[in-house]
Amino acid sequence: MAQDRSSLDQLCVNTLRLLSVDQVEAARSGHPGLPLGAAAPVYVLWTRFLRHNPANPAWPDRDRFILSAGHGSALLYSLLHLTGYDLSLEELKNFRQWGSKTPGHPEHGLIPGVEATTGPLGQGFANGVGMALAEAFLAENYNRPGLKVIDHYTYALVSDGDLMEGVTSEAASLAGHLGLGKIIYLYDDNQISIEGSTGLTFTENVAARFEAYGWQVLRVQEANDLAAVEKALAQAREDQTRPSLVITRSHIGFGSPRQDDAKAHGEPLGPENTRATKEFFGFPPEESFHLPEEALERFRRSLAQGRKQEEDWLSRMEAYRAQYPELGARLKDHLAGRLPQGWDQEIPVFDPKDGPLATRAASGKVLQGLAKRLDNLIGGSADLAPSNKTFLEGRGTIARHSFGGSNIHFGVREHAMGAVVNGMALHGGVIPYGGTFLIFSDYLRPALRLAALSKLPARFVFTHDSIGVGEDGPTHQPVEQLMSLRAIPDLTLIRPADANETAAAWRTALAHPGPVALALTRQKLPVLEPVAVAGGASRGAYVLAGSEDPELILIATGSEVSLALKAGEELERKGLRTRVVSMPSWEIFSQQDQAYRDQVLPPERKLRLAVEAGTSLGWERWVGSEGAVIGLDRFGASAPGGRVFQELGFTVEKVVARALELVERRG
Amino acid sequence: MAQDRSSLDQLCVNTLRLLSVDQVEAARSGHPGLPLGAAAPVYVLWTRFLRHNPANPAWPDRDRFILSAGHGSALLYSLLHLTGYDLSLEELKNFRQWGSKTPGHPEHGLIPGVEATTGPLGQGFANGVGMALAEAFLAENYNRPGLKVIDHYTYALVSDGDLMEGVTSEAASLAGHLGLGKIIYLYDDNQISIEGSTGLTFTENVAARFEAYGWQVLRVQEANDLAAVEKALAQAREDQTRPSLVITRSHIGFGSPRQDDAKAHGEPLGPENTRATKEFFGFPPEESFHLPEEALERFRRSLAQGRKQEEDWLSRMEAYRAQYPELGARLKDHLAGRLPQGWDQEIPVFDPKDGPLATRAASGKVLQGLAKRLDNLIGGSADLAPSNKTFLEGRGTIARHSFGGSNIHFGVREHAMGAVVNGMALHGGVIPYGGTFLIFSDYLRPALRLAALSKLPARFVFTHDSIGVGEDGPTHQPVEQLMSLRAIPDLTLIRPADANETAAAWRTALAHPGPVALALTRQKLPVLEPVAVAGGASRGAYVLAGSEDPELILIATGSEVSLALKAGEELERKGLRTRVVSMPSWEIFSQQDQAYRDQVLPPERKLRLAVEAGTSLGWERWVGSEGAVIGLDRFGASAPGGRVFQELGFTVEKVVARALELVERRG
Repeated sequence: MAQDRSSLDQLCVNTLRLLSVDQVEAARSGHPGLPLGAAAPVYVLWTRFLRHNPANPAWPDRDRFILSAGHGSALLYSLLHLTGYDLSLEELKNFRQWGSKTPGHPEHGLIPGVEATTGPLGQGFANGVGMALAEAFLAENYNRPGLKVIDHYTYALVSDGDLMEGVTSEAASLAGHLGLGKIIYLYDDNQISIEGSTGLTFTENVAARFEAYGWQVLRVQEANDLAAVEKALAQAREDQTRPSLVITRSHIGFGSPRQDDAKAHGEPLGPENTRATKEFFGFPPEESFHLPEEALERFRRSLAQGRKQEEDWLSRMEAYRAQYPELGARLKDHLAGRLPQGWDQEIPVFDPKDGPLATRAASGKVLQGLAKRLDNLIGGSADLAPSNKTFLEGRGTIARHSFGGSNIHFGVREHAMGAVVNGMALHGGVIPYGGTFLIFSDYLRPALRLAALSKLPARFVFTHDSIGVGEDGPTHQPVEQLMSLRAIPDLTLIRPADANETAAAWRTALAHPGPVALALTRQKLPVLEPVAVAGGASRGAYVLAGSEDPELILIATGSEVSLALKAGEELERKGLRTRVVSMPSWEIFSQQDQAYRDQVLPPERKLRLAVEAGTSLGWERWVGSEGAVIGLDRFGASAPGGRVFQELGFTVEKVVARALELVERRG
Repeated sequence: MAQDRSSLDQLCVNTLRLLSVDQVEAARSGHPGLPLGAAAPVYVLWTRFLRHNPANPAWPDRDRFILSAGHGSALLYSLLHLTGYDLSLEELKNFRQWGSKTPGHPEHGLIPGVEATTGPLGQGFANGVGMALAEAFLAENYNRPGLKVIDHYTYALVSDGDLMEGVTSEAASLAGHLGLGKIIYLYDDNQISIEGSTGLTFTENVAARFEAYGWQVLRVQEANDLAAVEKALAQAREDQTRPSLVITRSHIGFGSPRQDDAKAHGEPLGPENTRATKEFFGFPPEESFHLPEEALERFRRSLAQGRKQEEDWLSRMEAYRAQYPELGARLKDHLAGRLPQGWDQEIPVFDPKDGPLATRAASGKVLQGLAKRLDNLIGGSADLAPSNKTFLEGRGTIARHSFGGSNIHFGVREHAMGAVVNGMALHGGVIPYGGTFLIFSDYLRPALRLAALSKLPARFVFTHDSIGVGEDGPTHQPVEQLMSLRAIPDLTLIRPADANETAAAWRTALAHPGPVALALTRQKLPVLEPVAVAGGASRGAYVLAGSEDPELILIATGSEVSLALKAGEELERKGLRTRVVSMPSWEIFSQQDQAYRDQVLPPERKLRLAVEAGTSLGWERWVGSEGAVIGLDRFGASAPGGRVFQELGFTVEKVVARALELVERRG
């Protein structure tokens, strides 16, 4: 393999390689193989093409670069340090240590310049599709002749593992369908995975597969051939009608004694191999974190170049705002993530007199109201829009080479939808959401977790949230999903009890800094008095009805609140002072101050009965040892929804009986 | 479109169609579109090719047919009833009603002849890959010249939605890689999904994509052309080196006024359209569940034919057992799902003196022991075998066109792995397992749920089960996974505390009728005395150490048990009578009788402290209102594992302090 060690470029590539190896060695933990093998193409991308300003990682019109193969984090940290991001050499020396900014896998928000939290394979690939979609949406809506204020590429480095993951297939098919031509991914084709050669399990024709998705596929026979990489990237950029996959044949652990060996993937090379590797590249074998000055200087050119690029953009923005003051102001708000004044003014108030309404239907109406004020609201469903009520009327649909609309047809691709919504949230400038049945939240759970870990403003509309689904049966009836979502740290679940709580839930969701999931009913529910809801729905739980001085507290969420209300009335008739608490969100309620929480659930009132058509696991938190739970610890059944509720114990009679039992038990 | 209504075949196809429509109409719920559009190819398959015996749905050498597009359940129920399975017309009339055997989506175990529970898209597709793999494994290991005792096909009907799902892509890539030539899938290419035309979001070249995976792709221009379908299926069967996708261009809702309309997908046609549809097909428009006798007779030929086929097989088996008595006996056991005598005799007993051991390493040793006695043990990892310790030494590896080994390289395809393991369990004859990191259990969660819903004997090895993962950081450190798995009904999670509990866990896992997931450590743990473990590990929880008359009970699982033991000793030294309970499995403990449960956790001993490096949500169940939990309600962090435990509060000091606090609080 060509190794022109004399050239500056080569020195830079080798600096990237060895700086990465040294991080892994210092930590005695990490993945040296990818940085050694993929440094060259990434170097070409970062120095010849990537428009970014290391001094301002938040510059909105920067190109995005995602290390989808997040295990190669050391390479990304090397790039960030070398090009001048606020990531010191000290941090690199603290790779994978407590409190460092160089964790095992890149974490968005923690490290300047990290565009996405990656590691779980396939996610970064799909995030990039979301970023490119957000770019295309903003570009089409805001660019004007001669004034391209939004114009950037989305790049990624993806691995064999990424391409094996299903979420990648879904996202690639969607990107190909839409013709998102400003996606350019380098595929680090090193033919090695953890168990050995990819020949063991991954022999599909990747190029043909991506062509079938509608991608432009380009090949670089040797990843270390800088000129060939440059040519391929230039060609990729030329075709803006299709996303591009640039396949670079590389060698994991290149230059080390473990080249082309699966061991190079996830094990430090060890001192001896490290020395040999440094010798191979002509670096001082005993020195760690050696930074040749010429190399550093070359990399740091990014700073001046990036500043210039951002300044150009700022002038363009200025000209734009002069010519299109209203648009300019709006775009500025979007890019800053600010909600416009009065954004929630068109959210409807629901009148009980208009009859019962499913919360999914209420959500649909709220969405129409939001769309009137938020022209960067963008989202859709994984082929369930008519059921999820996620379609924004009159707002146009995103289609192949037509990105101005607000409605996305994600297809039956729940997992990609999750990761694409995350990608849009990471990109910024848009307010993204996705929808599917609650049962299929399982399909996108890895993306939900990353949304939470990265604290992304991503919203998910999960309808058909219980056995109330009815006839579709247990395969489609959520049971454990509510509690499993509550278990994810930093994800907020809201399960509103009626249309007005649904309106409050959307208000919360849009103002909330992290991801929010709404659990909504398929079936109709009575509408509560707006005034009853107004006080407390946004606080996670509140006293909806009943006694100031309760002997018993009924706690319910979502569709079970109306059941609890009826049971509460019945219990009052029987002489038991009963309070009904609606608890749409555990997470939000937990964040209220103790005084408020004690007001809703007075600690000394220990007779409590929770009702939720989901697993009972966890409800002990709110009902305590003397309370009880009417939950569902089995799968559902296929029958009309009302019947299923009845058969599985969600009836007024059952709630009343259980409440009286509790009272009796206590004596 | 050709509609030769005079022929018997056509009458049969129309009977299938209208019997399905009538089910949906009776229920006023369901999916008429698929049965109308796909009846013809499925009819050809069932009457010309499918080897099955409706009188014995458990015949091991039957062909498998999976309705991956499970929403078309009415079509499958029609087929089952018409060909003579034990599914009465009454059941069809009770489609989607409480207690019927005709739920909204097919449920394996509930309905004779339903090979897999389907509905969540993509699962059936991937289950079929598992079935075909099990078939190939048994065939290669047991067939002998002239005596093919295992020789059947795996068929499925798959839809646009199936093909959009990522799990399908993963499974298709794996099947193509392995060259599983006895897979033949009909793709119901109706070009309609719920939101409208597939043109909205699914324009990839499906044929080219599957060819890229290594599949044979055949096209039928018109799904109603019975001869063309027959020809394609025959051709598919001829090539046994590659799986086959037969693309049949069909029309959703064919023959109804809603033909080619997305509404036909999931809404009943309604009385008027139903009448028109019956008129179109020449059926009495006012009659429901009309079964033309000639059609019924034609379908029922399957009974005689199937009986004959099974009898032939039985003779073959007899000859086989005569010639190969030992093999024959073994195969018989396998097919009956019986574990051989002494199957657990080689499970090692671990001696504390041999030093600490990670439970994943112990699991690896147990697996080697199991493999010595179980020659139908088959499994692997999603590219993490060296970490999951799932490789069976000396047992050969499954590779392209070579299926005799026991080790499967699933690739970085966790979701497909889950569904393929399920498929192998559904097929029977083998003892399947899959492995990955616990964090990635999220990727296969939909498959885990279906394993539980179908009560499949599927086992999953989830290693790296906590923040003990260390340097890889929060993207790889499970937090909510333990509790989220416990939340799935009928899934058993076991998190052993040491090597000996790991041995017990595997014993339980293999004997258990439903799915079992093991959560195992990356890091080393002290080995407990075998005798201490023997009494209780298999009962889900037991008293591991400490006082008979405890003032405080420490409850811990997995790696936190050794921490609890040390804390318990410290507390005893401080004069607090402390019991340490190891609780490897909530589910198993919950199934013990009250007396045993009260013995382990005496109800009157209310000072309890649970320690688990996972979300605290749910632990209130065991510690009650007066107890406390040391859990983890945030994401982890990247640093050496010991440091992360320490920083996040999992230390002897912290446990002791919290315990004393509890005592003090109580006074």
